[in-house]
Amino acid sequence: MNCDLGESYGAFKVGNDERIMPHITSANVACGLHGGDPGVMAKTVSLAERHKVAVGAHPGFPDLMGFGRREMRLALDEVRNCVIYQVGALQGFAKAMDTSVQHVKLHGALYNMAARDETLSKAVTDAVKAIDKSLIVFALPHSALAKVADKVGLRVAFEFFADRAYNQDGSLVSRAHPKSIFQDPRKVVERAIKVVKEQEVSAVNGEAIRVSPVHTICVHGDTPAAVKLAEALQKGLTKAGVKLESVGSFL
Amino acid sequence: MNCDLGESYGAFKVGNDERIMPHITSANVACGLHGGDPGVMAKTVSLAERHKVAVGAHPGFPDLMGFGRREMRLALDEVRNCVIYQVGALQGFAKAMDTSVQHVKLHGALYNMAARDETLSKAVTDAVKAIDKSLIVFALPHSALAKVADKVGLRVAFEFFADRAYNQDGSLVSRAHPKSIFQDPRKVVERAIKVVKEQEVSAVNGEAIRVSPVHTICVHGDTPAAVKLAEALQKGLTKAGVKLESVGSFL
Amino acid sequence: MNCDLGESYGAFKVGNDERIMPHITSANVACGLHGGDPGVMAKTVSLAERHKVAVGAHPGFPDLMGFGRREMRLALDEVRNCVIYQVGALQGFAKAMDTSVQHVKLHGALYNMAARDETLSKAVTDAVKAIDKSLIVFALPHSALAKVADKVGLRVAFEFFADRAYNQDGSLVSRAHPKSIFQDPRKVVERAIKVVKEQEVSAVNGEAIRVSPVHTICVHGDTPAAVKLAEALQKGLTKAGVKLESVGSFL
Amino acid sequence: MNCDLGESYGAFKVGNDERIMPHITSANVACGLHGGDPGVMAKTVSLAERHKVAVGAHPGFPDLMGFGRREMRLALDEVRNCVIYQVGALQGFAKAMDTSVQHVKLHGALYNMAARDETLSKAVTDAVKAIDKSLIVFALPHSALAKVADKVGLRVAFEFFADRAYNQDGSLVSRAHPKSIFQDPRKVVERAIKVVKEQEVSAVNGEAIRVSPVHTICVHGDTPAAVKLAEALQKGLTKAGVKLESVGSFL
Repeated sequence: MNCDLGESYGAFKVGNDERIMPHITSANVACGLHGGDPGVMAKTVSLAERHKVAVGAHPGFPDLMGFGRREMRLALDEVRNCVIYQVGALQGFAKAMDTSVQHVKLHGALYNMAARDETLSKAVTDAVKAIDKSLIVFALPHSALAKVADKVGLRVAFEFFADRAYNQDGSLVSRAHPKSIFQDPRKVVERAIKVVKEQEVSAVNGEAIRVSPVHTICVHGDTPAAVKLAEALQKGLTKAGVKLESVGSFL
Repeated sequence: MNCDLGESYGAFKVGNDERIMPHITSANVACGLHGGDPGVMAKTVSLAERHKVAVGAHPGFPDLMGFGRREMRLALDEVRNCVIYQVGALQGFAKAMDTSVQHVKLHGALYNMAARDETLSKAVTDAVKAIDKSLIVFALPHSALAKVADKVGLRVAFEFFADRAYNQDGSLVSRAHPKSIFQDPRKVVERAIKVVKEQEVSAVNGEAIRVSPVHTICVHGDTPAAVKLAEALQKGLTKAGVKLESVGSFL
Repeated sequence: MNCDLGESYGAFKVGNDERIMPHITSANVACGLHGGDPGVMAKTVSLAERHKVAVGAHPGFPDLMGFGRREMRLALDEVRNCVIYQVGALQGFAKAMDTSVQHVKLHGALYNMAARDETLSKAVTDAVKAIDKSLIVFALPHSALAKVADKVGLRVAFEFFADRAYNQDGSLVSRAHPKSIFQDPRKVVERAIKVVKEQEVSAVNGEAIRVSPVHTICVHGDTPAAVKLAEALQKGLTKAGVKLESVGSFL
Repeated sequence: MNCDLGESYGAFKVGNDERIMPHITSANVACGLHGGDPGVMAKTVSLAERHKVAVGAHPGFPDLMGFGRREMRLALDEVRNCVIYQVGALQGFAKAMDTSVQHVKLHGALYNMAARDETLSKAVTDAVKAIDKSLIVFALPHSALAKVADKVGLRVAFEFFADRAYNQDGSLVSRAHPKSIFQDPRKVVERAIKVVKEQEVSAVNGEAIRVSPVHTICVHGDTPAAVKLAEALQKGLTKAGVKLESVGSFL
């Protein structure tokens, strides 16, 4: 289970990091360009350490005002260097606390654009590989990023969004769609268990779709219901016999 | 010989990095908070590599508009985390190019404030030590930073500003003073040789002052005369029998 | 009654603007440098309009990461221009909604520094006067800013912090002090009424101190209790026969 | 004749404002989001005043690192509010110096995107109209922005790029094309005169294309040859009997 954390910035608070951290295994830590600042990064890495949660970099576009959610047309070397910058900065905090960065998960618009664009994904994975080839890349199964990361020899963790509806082609239903988000914890847990045990999920049109073996389940941290959902998933999956570990320990 | 480089930001160009780099042994690379952006950092580390110049981090206050030259009252842990962030980001680029960061030199107002404030210096050196205890700290001889860095067990390179006038107490004459800057290359080279060979420099009032053995000479990169000065120093010192090497090789 | 509002930034939410606005008469709107972004400013001015609340500019230091709360050593013309920039930007939104900016209240460290520094206050009031000499300046009674604003011919509204403890000299007790904040609405209302009716307030040491006639009472918007406090003050003062109007209508 | 000026930011210098200003009639002043800072804006408006040059706002995307040249997918109200913010801020400086803002010219990627997108153009022109309906909009003839600005009742100044090659459809040849830029001042002046006198320009393929009556000629300020070009255009056009005035005086 992974969650985007450390996205506060200075006096601007986002999320419930302290209450989510106990229920997850991997924390995706914002690195200062879309959210997160040096102080928040230090605090988040330290909090993850305390809860034995693996730390990952969560690089986004350099767009604090848009929280990295607005598409930006960057040159490929700009993307590459923005990823190196952010992963490097987080590695600094990891080293300062005698731990290390386990994975990289892209944020917001960069995540979405890389999922469908192999050239962009190549810029990202080149950056990741150059800085540390043992880093694991989190990606949507079947996405361009997943393909490219695998091709360049990086380990890939397939990610499932337990609270998001899926289209038949395995992509996420847009947040603009009224049925894009599941809020009932029971439903979300049920979907998560089905995906893990049977590699199957119901698409928004009701049909079952097959997905690749899923390695990590994403919980959103910035909604009011997030803590309950994280807790429910942790309990529900454990009860269903799923052992929750950080991806670095089994990939 | 060291020089502050990589201080451009996006389309905003500062300095003459390409022309200065051939004449120095250590480059202090801006890390994004007062100047420098991910693309500029990548280019500067790559340029340093090509010229066998050692790479150092040049962290400053988070004040792009003020180029890190305005004093800011940060909490000690804010200083600490800003230093970790910037050094870590540069280490990312160093790793991506199979090299490493040799030293840390503070920038602008942070440099000046740490020179006279031991508590602030402690926040800085704690950050440096936590991230990599083999990093060398550049400091003004007799400064608070030099003392504290030495006390916590970090290597310190004493720095001499060849083109700046000195007060009798070894501090720099303020830039506001009309005689604060030497522009004649011959004069600058002469001062540099005297400091290296005799550990002595003439203060602004004419009296000779003793300085500690100097390990590195700072050349400013952002003035029109900078390239000529760097070249003159390189030639003059070499001719005077001074072997120029990056500080990491002899400290 | 005034309150600092519109301090959110992009996805980063601060305060309870919608719930505070109905209870106040003047809104101090952040202008983008310490908080607030163009979208937030538009929304806040529009919200103020809907509730017939007078709009004021709330300029701060250019330090988003520090929320304008960290002291910065700016040159006087930098301060002047930062104030013009922020007031001008807010006037843009005011004009676009057929309203106007009534007052200027400094934010955070800039407020505190101007309160004790006449030179800095002069830079601020010169900026305000140049842009629109009918603007009212909010200031602590007896502060440097109050004096200077009065001297240059600007109208000044004396401000009382109903939930903050005062020192005997009329300055605010530092937030670091355990008794610096009053949280009990009854106590806060009582203090406000006493100040308005009798120009008197109990200092932290128990002695009564005389204050100038108070024109506006500041309510903090970013605490959980803020809405209740604002509501209690509005009711309490009205019940005590105090007519609440925006300062522009009586100063 | 118009030129983009005031694009420096803090210590980062761009362009030759002092040397270009004497040769133009309209200055497009950057407003802080892609370049320009409060101090630079103050200085540029003051410089324009001294040379009797009309002042215009030059709003761009909030992307300092990319100098507003990278396409960003902003929501329409985000665009609208970014324009109000920037025009308002510049009006602040104009008012502080007893002058006013004459026109609005979009910058970089925002200029290019608005030229081809009517919905985006509508967001921009709504902002301009709301803030001051007497503002003149600078636009490429036949562009979406020109059409929309005209439709909402704003005055439009058609702009000709004297040093840029044109495609047959009246759009600019991309900067990536080897023949996109004219550098020979004689050639540039000749093209400008032909456009003004005959409403005709040679496209990159050699064919003559008709253009609308041109009201303003853009000179780029950030190239080394810019000053010479501006001077040559000023002299050449004057000699050819063209009277150079700011657009506000005849549109």
